[in-house]
Amino acid sequence: MLDQYRDLMATASFNRWAGFRVVAAADGESELRMTWRPDDMGQYAGFLHAGLIAALLDTACGLAAATVSGQVLASQFSMQCLSPGVGDEFIARGRVVKAGRSQVFTSAELHAVTGETVKLVATATTVLVPTGQPVIVGAAA
Amino acid sequence: MLDQYRDLMATASFNRWAGFRVVAAADGESELRMTWRPDDMGQYAGFLHAGLIAALLDTACGLAAATVSGQVLASQFSMQCLSPGVGDEFIARGRVVKAGRSQVFTSAELHAVTGETVKLVATATTVLVPTGQPVIVGAAA
Amino acid sequence: MLDQYRDLMATASFNRWAGFRVVAAADGESELRMTWRPDDMGQYAGFLHAGLIAALLDTACGLAAATVSGQVLASQFSMQCLSPGVGDEFIARGRVVKAGRSQVFTSAELHAVTGETVKLVATATTVLVPTGQPVIVGAAA
Amino acid sequence: MLDQYRDLMATASFNRWAGFRVVAAADGESELRMTWRPDDMGQYAGFLHAGLIAALLDTACGLAAATVSGQVLASQFSMQCLSPGVGDEFIARGRVVKAGRSQVFTSAELHAVTGETVKLVATATTVLVPTGQPVIVGAAA
Repeated sequence: MLDQYRDLMATASFNRWAGFRVVAAADGESELRMTWRPDDMGQYAGFLHAGLIAALLDTACGLAAATVSGQVLASQFSMQCLSPGVGDEFIARGRVVKAGRSQVFTSAELHAVTGETVKLVATATTVLVPTGQPVIVGAAA
Repeated sequence: MLDQYRDLMATASFNRWAGFRVVAAADGESELRMTWRPDDMGQYAGFLHAGLIAALLDTACGLAAATVSGQVLASQFSMQCLSPGVGDEFIARGRVVKAGRSQVFTSAELHAVTGETVKLVATATTVLVPTGQPVIVGAAA
Repeated sequence: MLDQYRDLMATASFNRWAGFRVVAAADGESELRMTWRPDDMGQYAGFLHAGLIAALLDTACGLAAATVSGQVLASQFSMQCLSPGVGDEFIARGRVVKAGRSQVFTSAELHAVTGETVKLVATATTVLVPTGQPVIVGAAA
Repeated sequence: MLDQYRDLMATASFNRWAGFRVVAAADGESELRMTWRPDDMGQYAGFLHAGLIAALLDTACGLAAATVSGQVLASQFSMQCLSPGVGDEFIARGRVVKAGRSQVFTSAELHAVTGETVKLVATATTVLVPTGQPVIVGAAA
């Protein structure tokens, strides 16, 4: 199944550009990783741009939701930015809080890794809506 | 002053990569534009990725706040995704709702433009914290 | 129709206790009013309690949504508290931002009135889910 | 110390009206309880009103923050409503996620208890601002 989630992730051109790697996706939980690139990922002070913080958290939430509810679209996203996004590697972990028929509620945390140091950068919650499509993409191909 | 905000925006490597263009920034209001690129901006269904929706809204909020409070950092971000992000061009407009000493409250709207059609894609609110630095970057250079 | 929204509001025992008055409810917009009572509405510093700020904003959003989509339940609520809730009277105005089949997106503002002075206290956005029931309650009674 | 937090809670007239009971408050964590009263706590369908859900979650967050940062005021509040608020007793638990100098980030969960059954009703996050005042209220009295 992990390969199917990786294939689904890779259909998103932005995810490919950002280099999101699916480390885990099962049973309402997910883990994504991304390597820091100063040349195209920074905000004005040189930290990880809030758009990429949001992208990692939102994608981890969507991936966790997909393991329970198939393909989903985010409708509401809330994020707390706790610490500047400074690190060599970023790890986003998502988790389904409640999966209903018409809405899936999830939460996620983003950590920055610098050498041996791991630091909580941001947390988020999302509301997602199942599209009714399964995770498997391009099955006919 | 507009040139100073453009310079500030351009110090962010992610903004340069995404091609954010500052159209307006004054008196607590801002306007940013971005041209759609399918090859590196899409989510899995081919719409604008939520990370870029967030990046546009968050940056428009930050820019609006900067016109009143100098440099700022976002601490909380909430977004409603109303319609799929489909368009040739995206326009984000930010606005300061209240600027306090320790916190600035802002809101923003993102529209997609396709030919003559303009559609509301998402709305957001952010809480930002002034860093105490003015907008002018690298004045000594 | 306004009487039907007033009847719907009055079925909520908390709304009766708080004295919410429906001033307007039509075409995706709503207005609610409430008179301040220091004896049971304050937080620890004597301002309007955040729970009542949330109640006014959430109810104004629900009422605006009901004018378009029938009975609704809130699933996500985000609030910015801009100024202490100090006033003799509070006015909450709600508005539908987008009404979809499975989700309704709304926003609201809360103002405090003291004599001639009107002050913005808080803003909110909500995501609501239509229950499929019309607004008219107890029609068979 | 628990008595001091109870005294602080009791200075809020709304908390007294709602019957909030402080069960725990130490080291960045808190627990509040409230007994359900159908006569003045319901929304239109007879569940716990969203305003009271918000009040419990916001107050639990404020209490958790107060154990670390002294008196605080909420500036941003986000809530996910997962299940109808149905129960005889409600338990809100708050937790500090990060306490900074100018902002405290917290989260909370609300459970409904009916007999032996405990159900997650809602989750929330808040951003709070320390006022610079200690928890002890009316020490001079």
